[in-house]
Amino acid sequence: MTPAATESPADLVVTGCAVLTHDDRERIGFAQDAAIVVRGGAVEEVTSAGAVAGRAAREWIDARGQVALPGLINCHTHAPMVALRGLAEDLPTEEWFNDVVWPVESNLTARDVELGALLACAEMIRGGVTCFADHYFAMDAVAAVVDGCGMRALLGEAFFSSQGAEGRERSLAFALRHRGAADGRITTALAPHAPYTVDDTDLAATARLAHEHGLPVHLHAAENRDQTEASLARHGVTPVEVLHRTGILDTDVLIAHGTGVVESDLPLLERASGRTAVATAPRGYLKFAWPHTTPVRALRDIGVPVGLATDGAASNNSLDVWESMALTSLIQKSTEGDPRWLTSRQALHHATLQSARAVGLGGGAGGIGSIAPGRRADLVLVDLTGPHTQPVHDLAATLVHSARAADVRTTIVDGRILMRDRELLTIDVPEVVRELGERLPALVDRSHGRRIQEYGT
Amino acid sequence: MTPAATESPADLVVTGCAVLTHDDRERIGFAQDAAIVVRGGAVEEVTSAGAVAGRAAREWIDARGQVALPGLINCHTHAPMVALRGLAEDLPTEEWFNDVVWPVESNLTARDVELGALLACAEMIRGGVTCFADHYFAMDAVAAVVDGCGMRALLGEAFFSSQGAEGRERSLAFALRHRGAADGRITTALAPHAPYTVDDTDLAATARLAHEHGLPVHLHAAENRDQTEASLARHGVTPVEVLHRTGILDTDVLIAHGTGVVESDLPLLERASGRTAVATAPRGYLKFAWPHTTPVRALRDIGVPVGLATDGAASNNSLDVWESMALTSLIQKSTEGDPRWLTSRQALHHATLQSARAVGLGGGAGGIGSIAPGRRADLVLVDLTGPHTQPVHDLAATLVHSARAADVRTTIVDGRILMRDRELLTIDVPEVVRELGERLPALVDRSHGRRIQEYGT
Repeated sequence: MTPAATESPADLVVTGCAVLTHDDRERIGFAQDAAIVVRGGAVEEVTSAGAVAGRAAREWIDARGQVALPGLINCHTHAPMVALRGLAEDLPTEEWFNDVVWPVESNLTARDVELGALLACAEMIRGGVTCFADHYFAMDAVAAVVDGCGMRALLGEAFFSSQGAEGRERSLAFALRHRGAADGRITTALAPHAPYTVDDTDLAATARLAHEHGLPVHLHAAENRDQTEASLARHGVTPVEVLHRTGILDTDVLIAHGTGVVESDLPLLERASGRTAVATAPRGYLKFAWPHTTPVRALRDIGVPVGLATDGAASNNSLDVWESMALTSLIQKSTEGDPRWLTSRQALHHATLQSARAVGLGGGAGGIGSIAPGRRADLVLVDLTGPHTQPVHDLAATLVHSARAADVRTTIVDGRILMRDRELLTIDVPEVVRELGERLPALVDRSHGRRIQEYGT
Repeated sequence: MTPAATESPADLVVTGCAVLTHDDRERIGFAQDAAIVVRGGAVEEVTSAGAVAGRAAREWIDARGQVALPGLINCHTHAPMVALRGLAEDLPTEEWFNDVVWPVESNLTARDVELGALLACAEMIRGGVTCFADHYFAMDAVAAVVDGCGMRALLGEAFFSSQGAEGRERSLAFALRHRGAADGRITTALAPHAPYTVDDTDLAATARLAHEHGLPVHLHAAENRDQTEASLARHGVTPVEVLHRTGILDTDVLIAHGTGVVESDLPLLERASGRTAVATAPRGYLKFAWPHTTPVRALRDIGVPVGLATDGAASNNSLDVWESMALTSLIQKSTEGDPRWLTSRQALHHATLQSARAVGLGGGAGGIGSIAPGRRADLVLVDLTGPHTQPVHDLAATLVHSARAADVRTTIVDGRILMRDRELLTIDVPEVVRELGERLPALVDRSHGRRIQEYGT
């Protein structure tokens, strides 16, 4: 206990719960009947419930029967696309893009994006997500939503080479304008769309800008095996080789999906001089019937962290990172043919420290992804008293395979309570749904025949 | 409207909701702003909200913003195994059986089974499940729980040939004793464990008893491809060929899993003279890293219904049939390499009429699986006002891919409300959890070295 802790009231004390911990080898454990003391938006202390009895605090949460976890991190999404949830069902990737999503996105307004982001943040806060990496358009609107609703986010303004130099410049201007905003809850990235929509010149320029301004890069690459095959056929190199030769792998890069990463890409990813990470969103790969999922085991073997993600709700139908955690475990076991692989503790490691590293927030003090002194107080309280989570023989398994997003009762970011006992405190969902509903007919109109880009891998 | 409807108050009116309907070709649709009138445990009328305004009813549910679906059906589970949830994690099938589950099951008492069944029924009612097909031991205790909690169930007392003739006789006695119990909510089946634990003589005797007493048969068969290979190596026939030659396929048979069904089995299943159905529980196949899932498309092509299931929570970790519905869609798309296959409407057809047929309750009046005059009033009300289920562009997709079990607000069986606004009305969960917790140390003790059976495919 620091002297300060006895001198002035803490901002928040959460007590009586189990707390997910990482030991010095990052192994997942659980402190029972524990307490968390929060001050100045950070975790000050993780101790026993007994040790905080009588402690003064501005807010006090009795969390008996609950488990405190680091808030989930959605490492790759397009939050405003919740507006298109269910609009393009049961389609192959190319038709999904060319016939529905890219035509509709040519109608997007900043207000649509703002309302979509609000709805998405409401969904994520209710599902225990405290931080998301967003890659979309009109991102000023998303930044305003993040500021207002209290979440944490890594934001990037997406661009295609078809937009000319202006797209790249807008992405940079956005990243510089919002970096460190919302009391530091917003970090930013340069956000080229993908190697199949952004040419080598633009990727190389992006890499230079990233170095010059100390910015990470967030992009799609090797999303599926078709893209890898098409890249080989057209350019003689894989998408990851494109990232290598354009210098993107020398930046701090977050690669979305990577289900098309092949064996020969692995040495490039391993030797990359920047901080390299991959985000996996397995639900969409199944729904699109892609033949592979993210090669998590191969990436682990070369030390590349794999964070959990949902992608946008237009393909994934939800922003349920809890489901991504369970599916990652299930699909990796199935893909590797090994029931001993991707245990619940491994899944929780992906959900916590690996996801934090993927969004560039894995570092010690000021980092997220673990509940420990000095880390930002981004955490969720999960109720395990429901019949579907009883009895508990193995708490990690209960969390990954039995609990669901709806079991999150309380969501806290930077020490601020954004949802308490399932009540959202910062977003008015009925009002958002009402206004978005009014705007949908104009948003989904495809009679104009325009699209923002053409998909052809 | 029948004259009776105007003469005496209905038992229940649910109004203002969308209602999932099947047309005369069994295509899924939704009646908007509709109402359901229930009398004598059956659906009397599906009409418009306007048409029931002012109607007299003993119970009245204003379900605006909700969707009424036929209650989900868990077509294959071992409900009491919730007591072992999380006890045997990340293990191959053989170790799961031989090292944990079968040793622990040698400790089972009727009271353990009863408490497990109570907890399981609480979980299922909360997840929108109104009927389950259970295959376990000490089933008198499960029947008592079903009677008390108000669910519907197809129950079978499991047996192995290692128990001698007594096992089979007990299974028959159970089936005859409980058939039609709980005001008709309980139906029964003969329940040999599987062709790898029940020999041909016993299977043939089971088939004869099924015919003699007009009982269906519920068993595991061709659970995975290893079992099929082992059966071919040892007996020169597949498990389905065993079912054929022992006469089981001439009975009304519910086959659990069938991921080891091979091409040559299909004509046997197609020509089976009994009512043949398969239950699929895809989560466990992934978790055990089995190389295949249930061949839903091939079974559809030969007219065999495939119902949704969870298996027991010791392998599946939950009894979440909603998740099985979503996973069936996702895994079937992935397995078939076809994003257009197993659409949300197909998934809902599996969840409703195909599941009802699988448990032998597909028939017209008195059947379940659709909300239509004369069908039993087994239905659930699902809240779609949450941010994760908005906006709704395609209601079927919203239900299958965005909604979750926790969105079920109200669960009704035979016209009786078992959960209202997420409050369970027939089971005291904290008391069940408390007593089960006291019994767990004795239940999970494996120091005796016994097991109820040996797994070796």
